[in-house]
Amino acid sequence: MEFGFIMFMSVIIVLVGTFGICYLEPEKFPSLFDGFWWTMTTVTTVGYGDYYPTTILGRLLGIFLFIFGIGIIGVLISKTVDSITTYNKLKTEGML
Amino acid sequence: MEFGFIMFMSVIIVLVGTFGICYLEPEKFPSLFDGFWWTMTTVTTVGYGDYYPTTILGRLLGIFLFIFGIGIIGVLISKTVDSITTYNKLKTEGML
Amino acid sequence: MEFGFIMFMSVIIVLVGTFGICYLEPEKFPSLFDGFWWTMTTVTTVGYGDYYPTTILGRLLGIFLFIFGIGIIGVLISKTVDSITTYNKLKTEGML
Amino acid sequence: MEFGFIMFMSVIIVLVGTFGICYLEPEKFPSLFDGFWWTMTTVTTVGYGDYYPTTILGRLLGIFLFIFGIGIIGVLISKTVDSITTYNKLKTEGML
Ligand SMILES: [K+]
Ligand SMILES: [K+]
Repeated sequence: MEFGFIMFMSVIIVLVGTFGICYLEPEKFPSLFDGFWWTMTTVTTVGYGDYYPTTILGRLLGIFLFIFGIGIIGVLISKTVDSITTYNKLKTEGML
Repeated sequence: MEFGFIMFMSVIIVLVGTFGICYLEPEKFPSLFDGFWWTMTTVTTVGYGDYYPTTILGRLLGIFLFIFGIGIIGVLISKTVDSITTYNKLKTEGML
Repeated sequence: MEFGFIMFMSVIIVLVGTFGICYLEPEKFPSLFDGFWWTMTTVTTVGYGDYYPTTILGRLLGIFLFIFGIGIIGVLISKTVDSITTYNKLKTEGML
Repeated sequence: MEFGFIMFMSVIIVLVGTFGICYLEPEKFPSLFDGFWWTMTTVTTVGYGDYYPTTILGRLLGIFLFIFGIGIIGVLISKTVDSITTYNKLKTEGML
């Protein structure tokens, strides 16, 4: 159940980032997919620098993603890896 | 109480980064909000590359933020996620 | 054995990233080594921004690397450090 | 003692990165401080993109820093934060 909650929160935060930045900086983020790509590069802390906000509100949205998104997505990524290694463990132990 | 201390240390480090870089490299960081934005992209390790220090003192401030800021902000982000998941757990268990 | 599995998964993911991006964006990634370099800067979240995908499929490959690669490579790096400190511990305790 | 070992390994890796990149790509990294700055932005995964290697050997040095540096520096940063919070705990409990 906790995985479901983390997944749910991740989707909410990514949606807020995607729609938020396209609404706040439409010239820099012409399509929703651009906003989604920026949100994903931000919450994973990759930060290529091909997209970044330049207005005060856009940057505040970025800082919101830093504080809430990096942590939630970090937990999601970590739980995903756990699932893969657990699945492999059970399989090699003949329990799956 | 430990959360309060982490929060306090985070604010101190972000203030040092913000005021420090605006003092050391005023042409590159014309406003305090620019310094704040650079500090936040640095301590979260996003590092878009839209702002970065170019002087020796500015870079030493950056390295100070790497050593002390990344860790403290990392703990703050991690505790924030813990709070959210704990709150959700208690709520679904009917204890809130 | 688990280290072997993590190593195996890391190699698979890096190969998928390398060959995938060279196939999807051949003009931007003219050599396999360019694709390998981008994949490594991505899964470690360094993200210099010298290479990044610009097509929808290339970005979807990037997001695949974010979700699966960052976690697996993170575990690999963490286990590598553990090996080094454990080796040092055993050596200074005279057990190696 | 383990902190001493982590500190020692960190210094070695940062020196290898600094001297290595200045030796391998002297035009791009004219001073040792430039090499040091690139090494620090790399092992902390900030990766502003103001400096990055462009030759095969330079990139292989980068990947060496990814695999060994990110982990060691990560442990160093994490232990530094632990020291600060432990110091604060002992102090507020009146034991220092
Ligand atoms: K970056
Ligand atoms: K980064």
